[in-house]
Amino acid sequence: MRIIMSRFLALLIFFVCGSSFADPLPSWNDGPVKQAIISFVDKTTRIGSPDFVSVESRIAVFDNDGTLWSEQPNYVQLVFAIDRVKEMAKTRPDWYTTQPFQAVLEGDLHTLHRLGDAGLVKLVTATHAGMTTTEFSKIVSDWLSKSLHPTYKRPYTELVYVPMIEVLDYFKKNGFKNYIVSGGGVEFMRPWTERIYGIPPEQVIGSSIKTKFILRDGKPELVRLPEINFIDDKAEKPVAINQFIGRQPIAAFGNSDGDLEMLQWVTAGSGSRLGVIIHHTDAIREVAYDRNSTIGRLDRALDQAASRKWQIVNMKSDWKTIFSP
Amino acid sequence: MRIIMSRFLALLIFFVCGSSFADPLPSWNDGPVKQAIISFVDKTTRIGSPDFVSVESRIAVFDNDGTLWSEQPNYVQLVFAIDRVKEMAKTRPDWYTTQPFQAVLEGDLHTLHRLGDAGLVKLVTATHAGMTTTEFSKIVSDWLSKSLHPTYKRPYTELVYVPMIEVLDYFKKNGFKNYIVSGGGVEFMRPWTERIYGIPPEQVIGSSIKTKFILRDGKPELVRLPEINFIDDKAEKPVAINQFIGRQPIAAFGNSDGDLEMLQWVTAGSGSRLGVIIHHTDAIREVAYDRNSTIGRLDRALDQAASRKWQIVNMKSDWKTIFSP
Repeated sequence: MRIIMSRFLALLIFFVCGSSFADPLPSWNDGPVKQAIISFVDKTTRIGSPDFVSVESRIAVFDNDGTLWSEQPNYVQLVFAIDRVKEMAKTRPDWYTTQPFQAVLEGDLHTLHRLGDAGLVKLVTATHAGMTTTEFSKIVSDWLSKSLHPTYKRPYTELVYVPMIEVLDYFKKNGFKNYIVSGGGVEFMRPWTERIYGIPPEQVIGSSIKTKFILRDGKPELVRLPEINFIDDKAEKPVAINQFIGRQPIAAFGNSDGDLEMLQWVTAGSGSRLGVIIHHTDAIREVAYDRNSTIGRLDRALDQAASRKWQIVNMKSDWKTIFSP
Repeated sequence: MRIIMSRFLALLIFFVCGSSFADPLPSWNDGPVKQAIISFVDKTTRIGSPDFVSVESRIAVFDNDGTLWSEQPNYVQLVFAIDRVKEMAKTRPDWYTTQPFQAVLEGDLHTLHRLGDAGLVKLVTATHAGMTTTEFSKIVSDWLSKSLHPTYKRPYTELVYVPMIEVLDYFKKNGFKNYIVSGGGVEFMRPWTERIYGIPPEQVIGSSIKTKFILRDGKPELVRLPEINFIDDKAEKPVAINQFIGRQPIAAFGNSDGDLEMLQWVTAGSGSRLGVIIHHTDAIREVAYDRNSTIGRLDRALDQAASRKWQIVNMKSDWKTIFSP
């Protein structure tokens, strides 16, 4: 009987405490960044800790492109827009001689980049508007289900960073509410973020175009208009965080200068704060880029990391795996 | 022993099932509206029900002014703006001869109403901007803590409708996420909605002015600008719901034509839906108003209620209590 009881006790201890002994970030090599993340979660969630944070205030924000999934050689949403142009050009012959569509149809990304933000806005509003929100969601899902990354030859939703999925999971299990705060289109992300990241639509903040409520035969619909509503990038990220969440998160993850102000805003608050920059250093397993990249440029944020006590993830040495095999 | 066991069993049954026997809406008189609300919650949450809705899709939206708290004789936020004008006028002598401030300072609400939306926008931007978001939150809390309703002589946060607090509670206990979707300013509501309604800041959607991120001596702050960002009213309510929540709620509560499109949007979806209109019919215990009121006009929404199968709360007969004693 005593043996049975002690076995039972051992089992009980295993099940009750097992999770706290298990490594919550198995794809991370041991090192200062992994240690900083685990220590942050421990001190903000352990009852009695001087840095304890109540569950409702445990809010973490994550950039998407380059932080949770791949953004090279082009933002996934840009590839989507390009594919949409090719598809829609069948009924828009004028696009073959009008920029930025001509550049897209000729595969001339150099010209497209040269046309800058104005060109991108034209591209996005022409390809992302004119349908209902429900229709657009289906267009995105259909495209993602049949599109492959040019070099990895895998669906984009498989090119998410395994170590970051572990962070999302680890945070969530510890009572954190994870939000995406991305320059990407909010309606481009919402159809799949719950399935891939465990992040529900209402916790996805992004750029948006305007929508209009209409009644069609008495049935209400939201139609997407060819007009920018909000660009969720740089200094607008803290603005969006305040507008959508209404409180200051205590942890932020980003990878580019587009996340600089978000990192500043989140880590300047009182109490324990965590700021993390994903530094793309692995030319073999992914792409190495920072100060000179047109996509995901990381320059000013890298300079400020030390003085603002942000952690810098060296993808090459900190991450055991990058994508799931 | 058998007696002890059966007592124990009885107690067990009481604790396990007690809550489902207890009346979840004790301040509501029995009648078709109360029945419709309870039946809706039952059929969307009972496992095996053909109308069962998974927890993450149980989203309910509530207008605030006139639906959750009193809006007569004036919107609370308007009273706040008026008090701010009086306070700020000490250093703005020009306001005594400039509209809409002159009307406010002379207590001439008739002229203020005549100046319409343009006057209100001027009033709001002048009194709600120029400080950081943190400072504004404190201004609101301070004002609410010392201000009394002109006729009830009670703090405004006590003038919330008890039967609606019960609905919020009942929904929440059944796994619903309650959102406020109000024409009121989001930063005017967030400082107190958690304490009064149990609704956290990130579930409050409202009108907003623009904010700007700045670094002051290296410390990031959000400054409120004298410029309207979004008016969350009428056809913009479904737009805001889509932008902030990203999925269609299954229940909506409103009280005026400002909630018409929200009610249409929410109740047009497939599956079981609930649309409820609070009809202010009680001239004795509150104020009786609908089609001819400048504040909270209820006209077109009332006309459409029957054909769209919305429930109409007759405050006089459906609610046992209106405010807590």
